[in-house]
Amino acid sequence: MATGNGGGDDGGGGTREAANRAAFERLSGADPVLVDVQSAIDVVPGMARETILTSGPPMAWGDYVGGQRDAVIGAALFEGLAKTPEEADAKFASGDLKVDGCHDYKCIGSLAGVYSASMPVFVVDNRAGDNRAFCNMYEGTNPRRLNYGVYDEGVKERLDFVNDVIAPVVGEAVRRTGGIALKPIMKRALHMGDELHSRSTAASLLFTRELFPALIDLATTDRDGVDRTLTALTEDHYFFLRLSMAAAKATADHAHGVEGSSMVTAMAFNCQGFAIRVSGLGGEWFTGPHADVQAKLFDGHTEDEIAWMGGESIIAETIGLGGFAQACAFPLQKYQGGSAQAMVARNEELYAITVGENPDYHIPYLGYRGTPTGIDIFRVIETGIMPAMDIGVAGKDGGQIGAGVVRAPLPCFTAAAEAYRARYPGQ
Amino acid sequence: MATGNGGGDDGGGGTREAANRAAFERLSGADPVLVDVQSAIDVVPGMARETILTSGPPMAWGDYVGGQRDAVIGAALFEGLAKTPEEADAKFASGDLKVDGCHDYKCIGSLAGVYSASMPVFVVDNRAGDNRAFCNMYEGTNPRRLNYGVYDEGVKERLDFVNDVIAPVVGEAVRRTGGIALKPIMKRALHMGDELHSRSTAASLLFTRELFPALIDLATTDRDGVDRTLTALTEDHYFFLRLSMAAAKATADHAHGVEGSSMVTAMAFNCQGFAIRVSGLGGEWFTGPHADVQAKLFDGHTEDEIAWMGGESIIAETIGLGGFAQACAFPLQKYQGGSAQAMVARNEELYAITVGENPDYHIPYLGYRGTPTGIDIFRVIETGIMPAMDIGVAGKDGGQIGAGVVRAPLPCFTAAAEAYRARYPGQ
Repeated sequence: MATGNGGGDDGGGGTREAANRAAFERLSGADPVLVDVQSAIDVVPGMARETILTSGPPMAWGDYVGGQRDAVIGAALFEGLAKTPEEADAKFASGDLKVDGCHDYKCIGSLAGVYSASMPVFVVDNRAGDNRAFCNMYEGTNPRRLNYGVYDEGVKERLDFVNDVIAPVVGEAVRRTGGIALKPIMKRALHMGDELHSRSTAASLLFTRELFPALIDLATTDRDGVDRTLTALTEDHYFFLRLSMAAAKATADHAHGVEGSSMVTAMAFNCQGFAIRVSGLGGEWFTGPHADVQAKLFDGHTEDEIAWMGGESIIAETIGLGGFAQACAFPLQKYQGGSAQAMVARNEELYAITVGENPDYHIPYLGYRGTPTGIDIFRVIETGIMPAMDIGVAGKDGGQIGAGVVRAPLPCFTAAAEAYRARYPGQ
Repeated sequence: MATGNGGGDDGGGGTREAANRAAFERLSGADPVLVDVQSAIDVVPGMARETILTSGPPMAWGDYVGGQRDAVIGAALFEGLAKTPEEADAKFASGDLKVDGCHDYKCIGSLAGVYSASMPVFVVDNRAGDNRAFCNMYEGTNPRRLNYGVYDEGVKERLDFVNDVIAPVVGEAVRRTGGIALKPIMKRALHMGDELHSRSTAASLLFTRELFPALIDLATTDRDGVDRTLTALTEDHYFFLRLSMAAAKATADHAHGVEGSSMVTAMAFNCQGFAIRVSGLGGEWFTGPHADVQAKLFDGHTEDEIAWMGGESIIAETIGLGGFAQACAFPLQKYQGGSAQAMVARNEELYAITVGENPDYHIPYLGYRGTPTGIDIFRVIETGIMPAMDIGVAGKDGGQIGAGVVRAPLPCFTAAAEAYRARYPGQ
């Protein structure tokens, strides 16, 4: 069973501890189910033709720089909202086009995370509550991707392929199943070498297995589409990531808004810095600088190329996956560097900053101990142990150039703690 | 790269060492490819209608006792060779029916391992040589199975289902693919929580993925058969085991017969005891007693129920899988007991008794070190470290009652060493 850890400085009243336990129970109790795939414009509340969603706390247009700015402009071009980057830039500046934050639309962004109206999104319902989350789809194995700040003919082609081939097939298959519960797949994948952030190899196969009967049906009318979809589903580590992200967003949102809770319910960054949200502190983002990354770069790339262009896939870590489940995924050392022993040590350390142990997500190497789950901002500050996150690394010229582990920066947590004390003076 | 360890007592001449390196290179270089599924009678050389194959060194009929005897009789009943157990017994005693050892027919037996003429077998070719191996198919999740010494209406029904539904669908799918290379699947599965003996969960999924396109074709004419086959392929840890066994048999046979080599090329047991074969010592089996097993039994069963009724699936360990790759498969601790740390220690210890490190089968937790591969009988004797093997545990009344780890008994190795010294007096 999950166990809450007592708060260290909660004044002995136990109110904060009780609130964190309540938030943890909600986090643990969520039941994310994939129910559909639809265009963002058709299902995302508030989405508009002229809106592009991007990762991290939303900013004024002028504050978006580098790859994240390029990605937002690329999304506008892809959507046909402008003919040139210059025209798109002008329209964002004038307010004819709008950039906004994914999280505020129940969406969750991978890297720059850009969503435009026509892009298909996974629709994930939390059946333990009444909330819903969305995530758009993986662009494929080519490291040049819109969400990594690149837009060109090749990127457009691959986005069109997702829109025109993958999404219709997967969507129809999902509808025929009547919904696919994601937690059982995620739980099992953790026993098969995935940590569900930088590695979702097993989850992608397990998900494909769930779709297979429906795919057989669809093959009678669209064999080519089914064959190409099967390839896309299983060709690398990443197809399922967008599903675990949507599941994690639905899960974290279910735990958000618990009065008095100091548990983190979102971590995200944009090109300017890192930020967190806290269950008992409303919609406010508490920001800090970027952190150092321990990265392993693809051949031919160097550290000075590393660029920050946003990222919200660390919602995985928010619910006890990814960096918080690294000891499930020793094969990751080949992809992001480090040793198995370092992965274990890093993973074990994180129990000191979390509210409880996940009742569903277990680490076989640690005797099936539940993953450290539910980051308490006060424990982070007390211990100085910063949340560890598995991320893809973007390059200055766009595209993925590697993968690695980052640590959240302390100032986000101290800022949140200050806000917490202001709002809950007795705690 | 794989590295051979120098032999300790080879007289300094290096001939035995060189022979073991040669045998190791053959073991490592095998390329097992699944090419077909056919009835044993149609493809197994020497197989006859009146023959039942069973695990371990072949014995006179009267020496088969307990569950292994029941299994052989059950196979005769299943094949319609007798109407009652008594009639079958009499026919085996008179020589009208024949019992023989799987290994001598290029087959490999799971537990009692029984083969009868009509049973479908996987046909696996070693494309790096000219040898071929066979393994019959998994009976399904019900613990009451013919290969665990049970024969009744339920067992017959499940065997008929394999013969009539699973085998035709899988066979046709395999033929349509033109052959499925097994080593890439096995290599990848080791990075996904399998050790390919007591756990083949990922390999079964990866194999199913390879069959998908052909299964879609077949679904147009036999949808129900394809659906039921899909379930059988993925419902538990065991479907792929018969494929890794056939692959291992094809691999080990490729390394057998290297003059001067003291490397083990088969381990097997029957109801009377344990036995090994050695590359440079021809077809002779070197026998010893049964070993103690560290078992975790299913609920409701006790240690005094444990029964030995044969087993050749430990061909996996012979080529560096199973117990020799335990540190790939921490989830096994739930199934067969023990801790992750004990699995690592046990796995690491085995490097002291093997000729080299596998160039293809790697252990992520050990920094992708190749699995300890190619057991040298002299190293076993020198170190006193006995090969560790992951096995299913049978009960006295038949059926599977648990799983565990066994150690090969020393007398097999000392008997083999004596034969080696007699045959190669200079070494």
